[in-house]
Amino acid sequence: MPPIRRVAIVGGTHGNELTGAYLAKKFAALPQLVQRSSFESTVLLANPLAFAARQRYLERDLNRCFSPENLQDAAALSYEDNQARAIYQQLGSGAAKADFILDLHSTTANMGLTIILTNRHPFNLRMAAYLSGLHPAVKIYFWMDSQTTFLRSISKFGCAIEVGPVAQGLLDAALFEQTQALVYSVLDYLEAQNRGVDLKIADRLTLYECTAMVDYPKTEQGDLAAMIHPQLQSRDYQPLQSGDAIFLGFDGTTIHYSGELAYPVFINEAAYYEKGIAFCLTQQQQISLAD
Amino acid sequence: MPPIRRVAIVGGTHGNELTGAYLAKKFAALPQLVQRSSFESTVLLANPLAFAARQRYLERDLNRCFSPENLQDAAALSYEDNQARAIYQQLGSGAAKADFILDLHSTTANMGLTIILTNRHPFNLRMAAYLSGLHPAVKIYFWMDSQTTFLRSISKFGCAIEVGPVAQGLLDAALFEQTQALVYSVLDYLEAQNRGVDLKIADRLTLYECTAMVDYPKTEQGDLAAMIHPQLQSRDYQPLQSGDAIFLGFDGTTIHYSGELAYPVFINEAAYYEKGIAFCLTQQQQISLAD
Repeated sequence: MPPIRRVAIVGGTHGNELTGAYLAKKFAALPQLVQRSSFESTVLLANPLAFAARQRYLERDLNRCFSPENLQDAAALSYEDNQARAIYQQLGSGAAKADFILDLHSTTANMGLTIILTNRHPFNLRMAAYLSGLHPAVKIYFWMDSQTTFLRSISKFGCAIEVGPVAQGLLDAALFEQTQALVYSVLDYLEAQNRGVDLKIADRLTLYECTAMVDYPKTEQGDLAAMIHPQLQSRDYQPLQSGDAIFLGFDGTTIHYSGELAYPVFINEAAYYEKGIAFCLTQQQQISLAD
Repeated sequence: MPPIRRVAIVGGTHGNELTGAYLAKKFAALPQLVQRSSFESTVLLANPLAFAARQRYLERDLNRCFSPENLQDAAALSYEDNQARAIYQQLGSGAAKADFILDLHSTTANMGLTIILTNRHPFNLRMAAYLSGLHPAVKIYFWMDSQTTFLRSISKFGCAIEVGPVAQGLLDAALFEQTQALVYSVLDYLEAQNRGVDLKIADRLTLYECTAMVDYPKTEQGDLAAMIHPQLQSRDYQPLQSGDAIFLGFDGTTIHYSGELAYPVFINEAAYYEKGIAFCLTQQQQISLAD
């Protein structure tokens, strides 16, 4: 494949996810931290008004605005729609088109350091294997983005880094530093690939593929009727079996899981209450990277 | 002292603190849970529009609107100013005036179950001693509210319950249930006091009195220059001594504490970034309740 010449590092796509936003601000102030000899790096604070307001977004979720239909929809006039078009202009077209996008997110779920892939290109899978070999705590989550609504879908190559648990609107210094180290490792991978340097990369990869979303139990009026059960809370990437407790009703009743073995993630993500997602079910897969 | 006849249980004073908001909704739907024979209970969701928006407030912090000056200020026209006047009408004056206010809050800081007192009336101190005897994890925080800006300052008797760590905009079922149990214990105390029932109450109380606020290091432009240091993160109510690390700069430098022995609380509270509070220093005090 051709070398990666232009890398975009994006933070603050969600304005209240401060880890990525402040990493972007740091890299913008000290660009030498993310420059490497074989490619150029662009740093972007993607949703500056939402960041200033410490909100996820002003009018709609920017990270759901990047489908080709939406980018061309003359009736899509929200601040985030306009911002998406501006970002697409900058990173998705013309001479400065990004070859690789790294989008920095955080979650209130206990997902540790997660690499989110939205396609199975071998270049991305090998990068994921490299990162999980280097940082054993790294998990690989595969979230097919068939409508290409995510910011990082602008480029075939790239990933999101999702770190947690961290509350919205605050900085956890330990997670900040771990995320920063992971960014540098991504850049090291790109530099080595560009320069033809052999990296030690395992030929197998464990990947968690999103297969279903589970909503909270609701009242007839559509309000929450239950919470994530304490026995499920914080157990992201742990096996979930039929009969396990998943919800605790406000009336004290326990609701149990019924279904095939799964590995839930995004358990109790604050931003997903409004999306009707209490957690995402994944299947654990072993991927061979042998040629 | 005269009996407590009217109790107000308030949640959602901050719209993104869901523990108290959903407890208030539960108690409003099932009022028998908070009724006792010797007093009436009123349940209030204090900031319904902020709760609907899952924001702390719409225009200004409702829990800083209750000073007499502000309540009488004809130029104070924000949604929260109007809401404060309406709440004062309901709970602070006339025949339905609340004798006791219990205001339910949550924090992103690791404060466990905290009772916040804003005055040292023996009735409140004895209640705090009763609660900490019943629930050994309970801590008592004294935050003098000399301007009486807090909602609960409407009444001389009462307290806030502050639970954490919990992110804004989500429910932690374990903390929800612990907070609920603590509410019932408060009601039990009031009922026993009204009925002249002797309660087992220790004659000593450990109290943490707020003595100073510490802001984040800032850049010349007023932006954050540092984060809570990992060695301070989550160590609410632990002793802080001169030389201990308190901040980690984005450039990797560590900033150390200089001052007398203190016990910090509200460490890394998300809502306090905009208030210029990284943590609050307290002094630990032993209070005698002997007559």
